[in-house]
Amino acid sequence: MKILVLGGDGYLGWPTALHLSEVGHEVAVADNFVRRHYDNELGVESLVPIEPLQTRIAVWEELTGKKIGLYIGDLTDAPFTYRIIEDFAPDAVVHFAEQRAAPYSMIDRAHAVYTQQNNVIGNLNLLFAIAEINPEIHLVKLGTMGEYGTPNIDIEEGWLEIEHKGRRDRVMYPKRPGSFYHLSKVHDSHNIEFACRIWNLRATDLNQGVVYGQQTPETARDERLATRFDYDGVFGTVLNRFVIQSVIGHPLTVYGTGGQTRGMIDIRDTVRCIQLACENPADRGEFRVFNQITEWKSVKDLAETIKATSPEDVKIKYLDNPRVELAEHYYKVTHTRLVELGLEPHLLSDTLIESLFEITKRYAHRVRREALLPTVNWRSPKASSFLGSPAEVSRILGRVLRAGEGNAARGSGQAHEAGEAARGVVEVCGGAGDHVVELAEQLEADDAEDSGPRGQRRDDGVVRYVRHDRLTEPAGIPG
Amino acid sequence: MKILVLGGDGYLGWPTALHLSEVGHEVAVADNFVRRHYDNELGVESLVPIEPLQTRIAVWEELTGKKIGLYIGDLTDAPFTYRIIEDFAPDAVVHFAEQRAAPYSMIDRAHAVYTQQNNVIGNLNLLFAIAEINPEIHLVKLGTMGEYGTPNIDIEEGWLEIEHKGRRDRVMYPKRPGSFYHLSKVHDSHNIEFACRIWNLRATDLNQGVVYGQQTPETARDERLATRFDYDGVFGTVLNRFVIQSVIGHPLTVYGTGGQTRGMIDIRDTVRCIQLACENPADRGEFRVFNQITEWKSVKDLAETIKATSPEDVKIKYLDNPRVELAEHYYKVTHTRLVELGLEPHLLSDTLIESLFEITKRYAHRVRREALLPTVNWRSPKASSFLGSPAEVSRILGRVLRAGEGNAARGSGQAHEAGEAARGVVEVCGGAGDHVVELAEQLEADDAEDSGPRGQRRDDGVVRYVRHDRLTEPAGIPG
Repeated sequence: MKILVLGGDGYLGWPTALHLSEVGHEVAVADNFVRRHYDNELGVESLVPIEPLQTRIAVWEELTGKKIGLYIGDLTDAPFTYRIIEDFAPDAVVHFAEQRAAPYSMIDRAHAVYTQQNNVIGNLNLLFAIAEINPEIHLVKLGTMGEYGTPNIDIEEGWLEIEHKGRRDRVMYPKRPGSFYHLSKVHDSHNIEFACRIWNLRATDLNQGVVYGQQTPETARDERLATRFDYDGVFGTVLNRFVIQSVIGHPLTVYGTGGQTRGMIDIRDTVRCIQLACENPADRGEFRVFNQITEWKSVKDLAETIKATSPEDVKIKYLDNPRVELAEHYYKVTHTRLVELGLEPHLLSDTLIESLFEITKRYAHRVRREALLPTVNWRSPKASSFLGSPAEVSRILGRVLRAGEGNAARGSGQAHEAGEAARGVVEVCGGAGDHVVELAEQLEADDAEDSGPRGQRRDDGVVRYVRHDRLTEPAGIPG
Repeated sequence: MKILVLGGDGYLGWPTALHLSEVGHEVAVADNFVRRHYDNELGVESLVPIEPLQTRIAVWEELTGKKIGLYIGDLTDAPFTYRIIEDFAPDAVVHFAEQRAAPYSMIDRAHAVYTQQNNVIGNLNLLFAIAEINPEIHLVKLGTMGEYGTPNIDIEEGWLEIEHKGRRDRVMYPKRPGSFYHLSKVHDSHNIEFACRIWNLRATDLNQGVVYGQQTPETARDERLATRFDYDGVFGTVLNRFVIQSVIGHPLTVYGTGGQTRGMIDIRDTVRCIQLACENPADRGEFRVFNQITEWKSVKDLAETIKATSPEDVKIKYLDNPRVELAEHYYKVTHTRLVELGLEPHLLSDTLIESLFEITKRYAHRVRREALLPTVNWRSPKASSFLGSPAEVSRILGRVLRAGEGNAARGSGQAHEAGEAARGVVEVCGGAGDHVVELAEQLEADDAEDSGPRGQRRDDGVVRYVRHDRLTEPAGIPG
């Protein structure tokens, strides 16, 4: 069948396009390359180098003889969205083309607004284009398990049969998402369900868990086909980040108690799930939801697993949780529908983790340690973080960490530099700066005898209020 | 207390500002006047003439000595939003400043996108401004009963205690809204609940029913203080529209069977509810929801009530429902919380309806008959209706109606004109045009002997596909 993969340059969009091409579908991808722009903005890079999309597509054709079509543009540009649906005339559209990092959406007002505007409006344009051009097209939309939050009841697949005061109904499963990003996906789900109801569209909402792994059989064929491997505190998902931390001798950074439990899935299962959803379309008028996970783990368990598997001496560091989420909670998820369609899960195993160690070791020289820490604080609403952007915080934090290496240096010029840098963080970030400095301190030796200039910083570190900055509106994409 | 009313130039914002001022609060209003722009776009006007906002404010001060502050600007402009919160330093913010008509959001893609972008982003900016400047501020947000849809179980006040597989939780009440407008309010509710959760904001979401009536004690003091009285098919709410139809001898236009049941509230209760919510704020961190209705009625019952009360000979006309909604359904709503705070409801009565007849008669010469019909069809997704906008459809429909008056004219030049006009509708509106022409035909005599040129139109009326138009992106506000 003809399948259009939106967001085909991303971590999952690219391997999905390859997998669908490999199994015989006619594939085109669309992308606006904003994922590469986020790297520029945050001052980070994928651990594994990635080729330009045009190169990747050329390499795939060179190796397999299979062509992948390419559209360059933005879904919030409605004429572009209409044009690609008309031009490629897909049977299914796989929609990965959204800003997908919770911390990115929590940086500040501008990033929250950007995330919801980009995701919700892009998806609305897509719904109208499908409805008007060809309502037979099956929309396969990437949602997230984060839409549900952590309810005290079992999480069902999108819908819930309830009884209330002696009457029954089937309703959309109640949502309690944990970031402006997760909220954008909840908004999408509601918009899609409505479009199915009034226009008889067919849609599958894939509420995906945290994805881990970096290779699929297709991407592994040539290093120029590699997909992203993100490890930074903004875009790096938890297991991938732990692996990198363990390899470079950095403590695994667990937020809070680590009792937070999340649904997980191997990247190889992700691409297979998309294939299954496409090849078994929803009915006209049907809004169906699959919980795209294969198992669930607490963050603490994940850290312990990495620690146990790693040949290195791995430490686990419990940081104050920068997010607002329950530390300990019930978690049980129904996820049978993809298995019914034929999914054979790859569960998290030593083999997978060992392969990740291998990839990481090859590229360990590319790791920027300061990018590993969480620089975005859920509790600190900010209009704009032009001065306190993650990139800026990371830069200053890097100085703190370097200056703080080895307690012997305390009291010396290096400690003084750390103190100055810490003050800088406080000044540029407002409330969030304190948080970053505390994290840096937690990571240094617990037995520090004196806090040096940093102690003074606590006393005199008045947060300077950057009014002109707060009232500056970014044009389009923030950053 | 100091209360900032956002959207203070609108149908309800203005009477609310007056009422809060009357009972002793210090009030300011903010507005971008887009409601007056919608009138321009749709080619309609409030039945009752309304003064410029500046004049209304001056008259209020002249009559009462009370001042109302005025900010002119747009909530999607974040610097404006921050500035008004800082400058006025309110204790409570009453947020009416959203596009509030379901049919307007269903005109086409551009209007759907405008509605969600305007409502969701304006509200997000407001949440950030409150969180950053003063999280003590109580947000009183206007939602809608339409967020719930028509579930087969009782509608509770925003939250639902559920038991599932032997476990219990309290969740946000599941939503199934019926338009892109209603969806925008669902998105708002989720965003606000999250903001309360992470930033400890205090918010009251008022899920308001269909409002009827045009006068409050405050607006009735001087005709220059009048609020809007909308009767058009896009912004006119159902009871107000029926009253006007009855006065001008137009059949009451019931969509579908009229079995659709909706929560209702008198405009005098609306302003009182807002006062009660402001004076009894939510706790820090609390997201509370009040169902702001006093009773519920089926559309058919409303029509019968108007028919029974009117001194005129009123006909009821059942039109094909342009919306997608259940014709017959269960409907029971819990709405005790505002009563617990002191609301004494004005239930729908002959007295109220008679006062509406009186107002309508005074301004009956201002009614544009063609504006009364529903010109927006839920089932017809369109990228852009530049040529088939409601104003354009109304204009052509006016010609159809005028030409079709009296069957005697059939076969004559007038009928020919009607046929030509009908063809015009089909051409400019695509699928929606057919719908409009059918409505016009339904409204003409049922016993027409021949369909004249209109019959030919059915055979040869190929929908011309206006591609250049569909791909034209409006800049900002559509229209």
